[in-house]
Amino acid sequence: MAKIIVEVMLKPEILDPQGQAVGNALPRLGFTFATSVRQGKRFEIEMVGQPTDAQMADIHKAAETLLSNPVIETYLIKVEN
Amino acid sequence: MAKIIVEVMLKPEILDPQGQAVGNALPRLGFTFATSVRQGKRFEIEMVGQPTDAQMADIHKAAETLLSNPVIETYLIKVEN
Repeated sequence: MAKIIVEVMLKPEILDPQGQAVGNALPRLGFTFATSVRQGKRFEIEMVGQPTDAQMADIHKAAETLLSNPVIETYLIKVEN
Repeated sequence: MAKIIVEVMLKPEILDPQGQAVGNALPRLGFTFATSVRQGKRFEIEMVGQPTDAQMADIHKAAETLLSNPVIETYLIKVEN
């Protein structure tokens, strides 16, 4: 059984109000370590067996069409065993 | 400059309607690879220099109080350089 991780983040040039809200809240709570915060999404997809080449192509297609909006977001796919 | 990644996922026993919606949409779009989908959050926190032990303790505290809800979520902290 493989686990496919798809990480979706807003492109660097796209304003990230959620991340900014977290970044603004940190110092209010006494946490001063952060210079910038970006918030994104993370999908854990379980599948039976190891992904074939055709399945990897499908995963990329799904990441592009369903899991992310390529106009404003980038995605990264990782396979864990 | 270090990048702290905080991954926040719902605990396995907590219902995940967002992940289920994605899991239900995949076969409708012709993607049949997934047996289960869970959706979570991902924070990219930039900081100056490498985190000290005190800063790592702060990061854990922030992850526990601001970035996740420990009642229903788990978090994982990674440090990238």
